[in-house]
Amino acid sequence: MSMLAIGTVGLDYIETPDLSASGVLGGTLTFIALAARHFSSRIGLVAVIGRDFSDEHWAWFRDPAFDRSGVQIEKNLDTFAWGARYDATLNDRVTLYTHINALEAFEPRVPEAYRGPGVVALGNLDPNNQLKTLNQLSPSAYIVCDTMNLWMNTALEQVHEVIARVDCLIINDSEARQLGESSNLISAAHRILGMGPRVLVIKKAEHGAQLFAEGGVFCVPAVPLASIVDPTGAGDAFLGGFAGSLSAAGSHGFEALQRAVVYGTVMASFCVEELGPGRLSQVEAAEIRERFAILKVMMEFPDMGGQ
Amino acid sequence: MSMLAIGTVGLDYIETPDLSASGVLGGTLTFIALAARHFSSRIGLVAVIGRDFSDEHWAWFRDPAFDRSGVQIEKNLDTFAWGARYDATLNDRVTLYTHINALEAFEPRVPEAYRGPGVVALGNLDPNNQLKTLNQLSPSAYIVCDTMNLWMNTALEQVHEVIARVDCLIINDSEARQLGESSNLISAAHRILGMGPRVLVIKKAEHGAQLFAEGGVFCVPAVPLASIVDPTGAGDAFLGGFAGSLSAAGSHGFEALQRAVVYGTVMASFCVEELGPGRLSQVEAAEIRERFAILKVMMEFPDMGGQ
Repeated sequence: MSMLAIGTVGLDYIETPDLSASGVLGGTLTFIALAARHFSSRIGLVAVIGRDFSDEHWAWFRDPAFDRSGVQIEKNLDTFAWGARYDATLNDRVTLYTHINALEAFEPRVPEAYRGPGVVALGNLDPNNQLKTLNQLSPSAYIVCDTMNLWMNTALEQVHEVIARVDCLIINDSEARQLGESSNLISAAHRILGMGPRVLVIKKAEHGAQLFAEGGVFCVPAVPLASIVDPTGAGDAFLGGFAGSLSAAGSHGFEALQRAVVYGTVMASFCVEELGPGRLSQVEAAEIRERFAILKVMMEFPDMGGQ
Repeated sequence: MSMLAIGTVGLDYIETPDLSASGVLGGTLTFIALAARHFSSRIGLVAVIGRDFSDEHWAWFRDPAFDRSGVQIEKNLDTFAWGARYDATLNDRVTLYTHINALEAFEPRVPEAYRGPGVVALGNLDPNNQLKTLNQLSPSAYIVCDTMNLWMNTALEQVHEVIARVDCLIINDSEARQLGESSNLISAAHRILGMGPRVLVIKKAEHGAQLFAEGGVFCVPAVPLASIVDPTGAGDAFLGGFAGSLSAAGSHGFEALQRAVVYGTVMASFCVEELGPGRLSQVEAAEIRERFAILKVMMEFPDMGGQ
């Protein structure tokens, strides 16, 4: 089944203790799309780009799965640009700059073909644009939504308005603590589930991810990686793998959600292995299956023994 | 099979945003023993206490599983005392005071009956006393060892000497990063396994625990608890459950290690639910089995789907 993906497309400057690079393709939609294409054969993309978005950048979206008719092109503005510096742990970063540029003119327009009952990956984006998108969708669409602390700090009311209308919220652990107003993640999760979404996924980076749904709670560890190059986009790749897997399953039942969490985790693990979407764009199906199997083995549960 | 447990016994002052209490029974051995007794019917205790250790304190060790002949009593010194204040998240704490007291006179003496091939829970303790203990044990004993950042900061050489001689090291994630000299936990784990122990368990509090062994890697999430009262001793309770389970299994194979990680996780989950060892001392076998089953369900793995 076809799916819809909305988010930002940006040109990033990334600095880590080991590298620095500018003009790196980034933005939430980029990572979502490059992860989701392994699961869905038709993905409608909704985003905005600017005059500096080159053929070289377009080349990343060459996959025939991508329908780019929903990508708005602003001829008088540059593409959204973001720069960040990671610390030595790669767990923390400072934003060096955020140039909104073309994002300011963004008027998300969902192509007619994608307004129906499919899965929607509503990537991290100004909640006002998330709301404009939601207003164009069928009530039968299955919305998987991401957001971030920036919007909780600056537009909390709109964030609440968005999450009350989505089926599944995917955020990281610090965002969950902030949104759920509790340092206890389980307590925060329960509160967030009271805000509207029936499903919550908390991403915990190296500690894996946790699914909270009516069918139960499910945990998956991160794929063990002894070295990480660039964490940018890992959360978006998670969302892309998750939403793509759900779309392919054609179900939102608990087992489909569990599987989606595992595929989200797997896609995030590829994302961090190279700068920007470098590794993600090269992933092959056999590698995805291999990492799925690694996680399965890591979670094989012992019997209770004689105790 | 009988097992041996060594560590501190202390009288704690605990302060959290919700409570404060003094004279609370604590120390690493206390939590180890109270967790291990659910698995092992005979536990030799090695520790030191002082003149202020009352009948009321002794009452916590009334279980006939405990052999107290290895507990040294210092009539002219007070019991080791420690005070700590937890922050609002209960994840961080400051030590208010540490009165070594009777610990200064501690000369660990392992009773003859416990020097053989059983499991030894070598609790967190001055590494010099850990070494003195190791020197009394049979080479066939299976040593499960804990340590902490304090000793890494003040006696790193002795810490290395200890861990080179143990079978299994159990430490928390920040200690693993420090000891393994890497912010990447997987990389740190690999380095630590190069220092001697064949098995490493990393405790990650709310994020569960991870086992690294020759048989593979295994992860278990924490038992979901929406409220925590006092985290003191959780790591020791983990060690007690882990070592007790291994002792009961009579095996150190990978499945026995997996099961031990689950039981360690379960015992830690009880520990944090009340002040000091309050909850841990009341746990019943059926509750332990119940939490084991909760974790099992949380880790039920989906099939790969059509992807």
